[in-house]
Amino acid sequence: MTVAQPPRAGRRGRPGYDLESLLQVAAKLFNERGYDGTSMEDLSRKLGITKSAIYHHVPSKQELLRLAVNRALDGLFDVARHVESMPGPAIERLEALVRGSVGVLTDRLPFVTLLLRVHGNTKVERDALARRREFDRFAAELVKQAEAEGDIRPDIDPAMTARLLFGLINSLIEWYRPGRGTNADDLADAVCKITFDGMRVRPTRSDREH
Amino acid sequence: MTVAQPPRAGRRGRPGYDLESLLQVAAKLFNERGYDGTSMEDLSRKLGITKSAIYHHVPSKQELLRLAVNRALDGLFDVARHVESMPGPAIERLEALVRGSVGVLTDRLPFVTLLLRVHGNTKVERDALARRREFDRFAAELVKQAEAEGDIRPDIDPAMTARLLFGLINSLIEWYRPGRGTNADDLADAVCKITFDGMRVRPTRSDREH
Repeated sequence: MTVAQPPRAGRRGRPGYDLESLLQVAAKLFNERGYDGTSMEDLSRKLGITKSAIYHHVPSKQELLRLAVNRALDGLFDVARHVESMPGPAIERLEALVRGSVGVLTDRLPFVTLLLRVHGNTKVERDALARRREFDRFAAELVKQAEAEGDIRPDIDPAMTARLLFGLINSLIEWYRPGRGTNADDLADAVCKITFDGMRVRPTRSDREH
Repeated sequence: MTVAQPPRAGRRGRPGYDLESLLQVAAKLFNERGYDGTSMEDLSRKLGITKSAIYHHVPSKQELLRLAVNRALDGLFDVARHVESMPGPAIERLEALVRGSVGVLTDRLPFVTLLLRVHGNTKVERDALARRREFDRFAAELVKQAEAEGDIRPDIDPAMTARLLFGLINSLIEWYRPGRGTNADDLADAVCKITFDGMRVRPTRSDREH
């Protein structure tokens, strides 16, 4: 697993914008207009600072993209590393991975949104996609292990299950907005309840014997 | 509920491309390059026919978009109408709605993909979003009804459950590709198994009494 750069590192104390807030605004703008459709000129106008003030922090638009998608990826890999070190059955580690991933998504929404829209046209994008696939493989492996340990039903394919599970998590970027009534923990709870235990009320034994 | 135009209607028998294949190619191109980023010129080059041959079928790019997103919406509303007429408990109707929606998505993938990327900049897009919201309300209502009938667990919010459920279905556009090993029925089965019954092996009563 790649060693993650700690988030929130690299501030240089430029008045007005530090690197983190610059990245936040850049990620939001890339999400609105597309990376290709956003120029450094657009960004400087949005921030109300000169282009050279931006270049004080980063040498290029590519580097802005790299740092922004890595904020998302580093968060996900921090969760994966934490999960790897957990004792206990794979299904518990899988649940921790799901909760942690929802947490990264809600906490770093513009960065995760940007990551999920990257298509691999440049080296930065291809590198991001490669790290995303590494994370997906880690998740798929946990599902497989939980199935081997007898905690996940054997009648669903582990690879497809992992895809559906993380597809559901990723779909949160389409509607989750912080501060609009849905608490991030409640969201993680609902995701886990539905995917681990299902929506349906579980029949009691006497129902099943009917 | 809006009356749906039957899909596959409106062929005019122009040699080379009928309206349906024209719409398919247009939807794919809009998905690749964005609706705004695709000109009628780009489309005529892609199809290898003149722009006037395209205008033989449709008066404008807007109309291509309208017809294409309605292929997706009409399919979903056909399913909703079928589901509405079903007897039996709401949870069975909800399961039929989920299966039917996965079916529409796999069957009309470029159209559903286009629909899910529409952002509401024009009247055509706003109309499509309004129909999408109408469908979402229908789905949320079914979840609520199934919960009222005691078939869905009361500890999850029906509105959030509907969002998660259809978020999962919509996320299939990110990876499902027809003819690449995953059968559409198996996909619908996996979605229903996970969301209705959960991934976890259900404990038997003796386990629970432990």
